[in-house]
Amino acid sequence: MQHTIKLGIVGYGNLGKGVRKAIDQNPDMELVAVFTRRTPSELESGSAGVKFEHISAAERYKGIIDVMILCGGSATDLPEQTPQLASLFNTVDSFDTHAKIPEFFEAVDAVARKADTLSVISTGWDPGLFSLNRLLAEAILPQGTDYTFWGKGVSQGHSDAIRRVPGVKGGVQYTVPVQAVIDRIRAGETPALSTREKHLRECYVVAEEGADQDAIRETIVNMPNYFADYDTTVTFITEEQLQNEHKGMPHGGFVIRSGITGEGTKQIVEFGLKLESNPEFTASVLVACARAAVRLRGEGAVGAKTVFDLPLGYLSPKSPEQLRRELL
Amino acid sequence: MQHTIKLGIVGYGNLGKGVRKAIDQNPDMELVAVFTRRTPSELESGSAGVKFEHISAAERYKGIIDVMILCGGSATDLPEQTPQLASLFNTVDSFDTHAKIPEFFEAVDAVARKADTLSVISTGWDPGLFSLNRLLAEAILPQGTDYTFWGKGVSQGHSDAIRRVPGVKGGVQYTVPVQAVIDRIRAGETPALSTREKHLRECYVVAEEGADQDAIRETIVNMPNYFADYDTTVTFITEEQLQNEHKGMPHGGFVIRSGITGEGTKQIVEFGLKLESNPEFTASVLVACARAAVRLRGEGAVGAKTVFDLPLGYLSPKSPEQLRRELL
Repeated sequence: MQHTIKLGIVGYGNLGKGVRKAIDQNPDMELVAVFTRRTPSELESGSAGVKFEHISAAERYKGIIDVMILCGGSATDLPEQTPQLASLFNTVDSFDTHAKIPEFFEAVDAVARKADTLSVISTGWDPGLFSLNRLLAEAILPQGTDYTFWGKGVSQGHSDAIRRVPGVKGGVQYTVPVQAVIDRIRAGETPALSTREKHLRECYVVAEEGADQDAIRETIVNMPNYFADYDTTVTFITEEQLQNEHKGMPHGGFVIRSGITGEGTKQIVEFGLKLESNPEFTASVLVACARAAVRLRGEGAVGAKTVFDLPLGYLSPKSPEQLRRELL
Repeated sequence: MQHTIKLGIVGYGNLGKGVRKAIDQNPDMELVAVFTRRTPSELESGSAGVKFEHISAAERYKGIIDVMILCGGSATDLPEQTPQLASLFNTVDSFDTHAKIPEFFEAVDAVARKADTLSVISTGWDPGLFSLNRLLAEAILPQGTDYTFWGKGVSQGHSDAIRRVPGVKGGVQYTVPVQAVIDRIRAGETPALSTREKHLRECYVVAEEGADQDAIRETIVNMPNYFADYDTTVTFITEEQLQNEHKGMPHGGFVIRSGITGEGTKQIVEFGLKLESNPEFTASVLVACARAAVRLRGEGAVGAKTVFDLPLGYLSPKSPEQLRRELL
């Protein structure tokens, strides 16, 4: 019988709360403490049985916590926190600024190797499961074209952009994959498509009283970078509708590779997610990766790792024998 | 620059031919020879540039061939050939008798450990990619229900059963997933379903001249085990139609897990394949796994392995740096 995997959470926003819930679903895991930059006692209401600590107390948990799950943002939190905590603990994070992954990897790798720890970086669903599926399909079908579609889901950046428009009181933006394009690809076509040809943008906007709705609509649909190049719809709703119908954080998407084997034989591989909660699902991926981090570290591995480096059997609590019997 | 991976193929049916074509698509690989129990010279027509050897000559290639890709059947070939060849070479096979995988694993593992070789067993798409996706989705969503659908695709066993019916000259059977059931699951329902509730059986039959078509239909749809418990359709066609419209070997299917996180949040993970050629796709998976076998063996690993034991990055010819930059 293996010992329980002891976990810490750093950061207690939507993702951190999702990790707490995911740990509850895994009997081989135990939450030791949540670390925060806020005043720990402020977080206690509604989280009975969870121990909160200030982030400055983390070092005292060295040797107690097996893996720290880092739930900060990619813009400013993780570039600082992952290297810092990797000097003390094994870590898992969801760093998702694609263009900066190589330098992030190098920075974390150097710290972790020196500290004899292991850090699984940039996991979740994209980067993460989508990346795995892009790799898998490309390795099997070297001749082919692949497509990533996101949505239907909330884009935080685009929602923020809407809310900055004068006369807008609130709003949310959904990125929506174009079904007709997906159907063409599933039918075997391999069109060359930009991100904007694959996605629509649906905006739900609460206008301030007396605001000019036509002017708001024009400002949004013509906004450069965010909306101008996309098919964008703007629907005005009430504040109540925004609260009641748009409070979820759904997301998802598809990775499709359309390849050729032999003499023109078409082969299509598709992976898709339909998520009612993006942060809860991402959290569940982080928790499974924490299990893999413990296993790999137990074999002597150190440094930064990505999903590409993990034998997937290590994500499961089941033994290799059980996996072969039940799931192969 | 790594040296080219030198491969042998054992068995030259549809799968072996598919492996030859897949090797051609991978510039880091080279086919050294095809081994057969038949007279090698008989196989040469239509396969220019391929060297054929009798299976008894395999031993002479020890130290020359990096991985033998075993393309025999699971019923009688592989239980004998994999252990035999694992005593001399690294191997990859597609042993797919699910119930016998544990004992097959043990037998191959013992031989390979003794011989200091590595064998990736039971790979392809099911077992193989479908297994990986069952594991991945279950590890991430421990609370959930999963579903495997096969098809639309040819079932060899059921096609053989049709052809044994008196008055039948030829025929083919397609296993077809029930679209309405897939739609329910994609919409979030988690019904309890047996294999027969998830699949239809479509039979295309060529009757002998003067044969009683109604009697043939009755015999097929009432055949125990094969058809009696399924919704089965029988369509009579001409010999020309059988040749022209049913000569392909399409297959595919879906693995869907419908899970719950937090307080009843629905999360759906789906993996699907739509294959114009089952053997060519399976062959492409075997070839990518041969690359992983070489990498793992290069790290000192020996014994039997399954897809659960492979870091997926090892399937790709790209370096870890390149994978992180391009695919993560």
